[in-house]
Amino acid sequence: MEHLIDIANISKEDIINIIKLAKEFKNGTKESDVTAKTLALMFYENSTRTRCSFEIAGQKLGMNIINFDANHSSLLKGESLKDTIENLYFLGVNAVVIRHSYSGIINNVMRLVKYPIKFINGGDGTHAHPSQALLDYYTMLEKIGTVENKKITIIGDVAHSRVAKSNISLLSKFGADIHICAPSYLQFENLNNSFKYHNEVKEAVSGANVVMVLRVQNERHEKEGYPESSEYKRLYEIDTELLKQYAAKDVILMHPGPANRNIEVSSELLDNRVGKTILEQAQNGVYVRMAILNTLLGGNHAS
Amino acid sequence: MEHLIDIANISKEDIINIIKLAKEFKNGTKESDVTAKTLALMFYENSTRTRCSFEIAGQKLGMNIINFDANHSSLLKGESLKDTIENLYFLGVNAVVIRHSYSGIINNVMRLVKYPIKFINGGDGTHAHPSQALLDYYTMLEKIGTVENKKITIIGDVAHSRVAKSNISLLSKFGADIHICAPSYLQFENLNNSFKYHNEVKEAVSGANVVMVLRVQNERHEKEGYPESSEYKRLYEIDTELLKQYAAKDVILMHPGPANRNIEVSSELLDNRVGKTILEQAQNGVYVRMAILNTLLGGNHAS
Amino acid sequence: MEHLIDIANISKEDIINIIKLAKEFKNGTKESDVTAKTLALMFYENSTRTRCSFEIAGQKLGMNIINFDANHSSLLKGESLKDTIENLYFLGVNAVVIRHSYSGIINNVMRLVKYPIKFINGGDGTHAHPSQALLDYYTMLEKIGTVENKKITIIGDVAHSRVAKSNISLLSKFGADIHICAPSYLQFENLNNSFKYHNEVKEAVSGANVVMVLRVQNERHEKEGYPESSEYKRLYEIDTELLKQYAAKDVILMHPGPANRNIEVSSELLDNRVGKTILEQAQNGVYVRMAILNTLLGGNHAS
Repeated sequence: MEHLIDIANISKEDIINIIKLAKEFKNGTKESDVTAKTLALMFYENSTRTRCSFEIAGQKLGMNIINFDANHSSLLKGESLKDTIENLYFLGVNAVVIRHSYSGIINNVMRLVKYPIKFINGGDGTHAHPSQALLDYYTMLEKIGTVENKKITIIGDVAHSRVAKSNISLLSKFGADIHICAPSYLQFENLNNSFKYHNEVKEAVSGANVVMVLRVQNERHEKEGYPESSEYKRLYEIDTELLKQYAAKDVILMHPGPANRNIEVSSELLDNRVGKTILEQAQNGVYVRMAILNTLLGGNHAS
Repeated sequence: MEHLIDIANISKEDIINIIKLAKEFKNGTKESDVTAKTLALMFYENSTRTRCSFEIAGQKLGMNIINFDANHSSLLKGESLKDTIENLYFLGVNAVVIRHSYSGIINNVMRLVKYPIKFINGGDGTHAHPSQALLDYYTMLEKIGTVENKKITIIGDVAHSRVAKSNISLLSKFGADIHICAPSYLQFENLNNSFKYHNEVKEAVSGANVVMVLRVQNERHEKEGYPESSEYKRLYEIDTELLKQYAAKDVILMHPGPANRNIEVSSELLDNRVGKTILEQAQNGVYVRMAILNTLLGGNHAS
Repeated sequence: MEHLIDIANISKEDIINIIKLAKEFKNGTKESDVTAKTLALMFYENSTRTRCSFEIAGQKLGMNIINFDANHSSLLKGESLKDTIENLYFLGVNAVVIRHSYSGIINNVMRLVKYPIKFINGGDGTHAHPSQALLDYYTMLEKIGTVENKKITIIGDVAHSRVAKSNISLLSKFGADIHICAPSYLQFENLNNSFKYHNEVKEAVSGANVVMVLRVQNERHEKEGYPESSEYKRLYEIDTELLKQYAAKDVILMHPGPANRNIEVSSELLDNRVGKTILEQAQNGVYVRMAILNTLLGGNHAS
């Protein structure tokens, strides 16, 4: 494993090793192999949890962190992202985490850069968010042991969700029974037949072991072709009653956060059950990112 | 002492312990108890000295610092401050310093957050700025030994000054003789009879051991109901002659900084006497903030 | 050597010591003398490489770094730069790197500040960029051993280039044969007869051992009196053929970066030769800045 660009391009074995290593970091049985290495954070889109999570993961590993300020950098002088990253490598940066609104930009720039800096995708457009999928997987394993043959239902705008795509990619590698519920115009092509679509949320949730609710992206919903919030809520909102009536008894509720109360998830459910899981996902994210950094830069020496 | 929200809610004993601990940090006789703990700085208002002071205090204690960028965070996606702080706690943040333009916001959010993250008020609206009051108190003790029965005069817009309010709250706990000089429409209700108002600056300064000059907030003075700068200067400016004629011989001059020259304080006085005290206040602030962080996160083990 | 403001005010001996120390840091034979000292970065102009280079240099030396955010600081409250820097000194900051669009501002503020904080010019207007000249010099020595009697040609808008001016100042101290090629209206007065002007690029490059190409600053070229890009390219662009035909056989190509492809330098030349040198310049910059920081703050104990 050379870089972390998307889930499709890493092996099951790599994923298993990252999960194992993350567990060791969480248990405190693993020391950092990457002390004094340098990590640059290049965030071209707003972010709290992903940026802070990588920064804290790097700090816990004893790394030096450079917060690259996209708004005050030489990119404003017309420097290309490729030139900037090559420059950072020669300044001593060992890895970059990039978040950007353009899908696929990290793949493109990685092909142009000639030096062995490590690339980590912190979320690119509607393409991929692999560290999120890894932390979601870690959280599922912690709670239900395995995803094999478990019914995992994702509800929301999968067409524009890098979180959903990376999760589907990962879960299908491990034999999960993936179900998706989304309005037909927010679906994307089911190329590998790796999941089943549902129009009815009751059907999608029926017997589910995990229900992952996606965030309604209000900034997108103002554009043409999207449902209004009230319409979305009426058709897709997950609440306590719905889960009680249809889902598996010990269903796990997940959300990549931040959640919109009483739109994709009821406020009551958020306060009582989902909220805690969101926070556990955030917590596990730090250990998973420590494992990613240690694997890319220090070798994956799970003991 | 669980949090530092305002002076009213901490005991005399807590204040004495913080001052004692700050002295030990200044003397170099105290080691950090909070190495590798994580501090997040959340500044929603402009700040140089308070933000840098907390950051340097944290660095000197060997803490990890997260500079939370309020302008590029998920708060722009509609995430509430409460959700953001709970998320930071699960990412591993042990304490947050918050500066915000809304009075009382830190109290409010503290009540909503369910996890044991420590809150430090870095200045909220016109409500409180407790770390400033503690460093001012430290500086007074260093210079005049005690504030008990000393005449301490605060001059300026006390109604809108969180610095003044926290100072009054602290000094009244320790038996200071507090006097305030402000235009009548910039006074606030003297609920506990804890100070005396003066309209005449000469009267207020007469025999004073400490004169604390507040910054004229020009951004507020453009609004209705405020005096013009020239009017303010004529009535309230402190200069060398005034002090010489009326104040105690060894009067201490203080200012929370940054000062407006020749408005609330004469340029000559600022260069010769006040300027140095402002800088000593800044210096002491780092040690006082180290003491605050060490007390909240590591136990107040003054030796 | 007390500060690093421009090259004119430091001695040959100081420069030789910095180069020697930088080499030791690059070879890994020198330990930091400035661990736990504090460096503040005050960048009032966009920058990637200079800011990151100083930050990484400071981190490698074990320093604490404060990124002073010019856009969210109390300067917006009207605090002067002098007051801000004195305040930073009392907060515990040992050195500041300042980048600013005003030529000479660092000289001015240095004279006003009364406390022994160290000043490093990170580039001020069109005046000076001394750390860039030092890293360029380091790179030349690494590649051609000495600059004495070597023909070094600088091509571009020298009148507005702080990089060119600091390079000329430094190279003339060490006996280089300096040649400049620029449109007549982008030349500056050759006060000390320290270089020769050429209007023809072929003549300027003829027999050159080093060709330093300056960045065309498009943001300036939109203003009156500047050549259009196509005109500039026709007259001054450096390409492989030109060098092959006119320059010395082992000519070194340099550029402070970021480069404009096919304007001041051909894309083909940039990809094949110049690009690598730009990156080596960036790499050497970190070691040179470590040497600067260690010299100003820890004594220049080259072993």
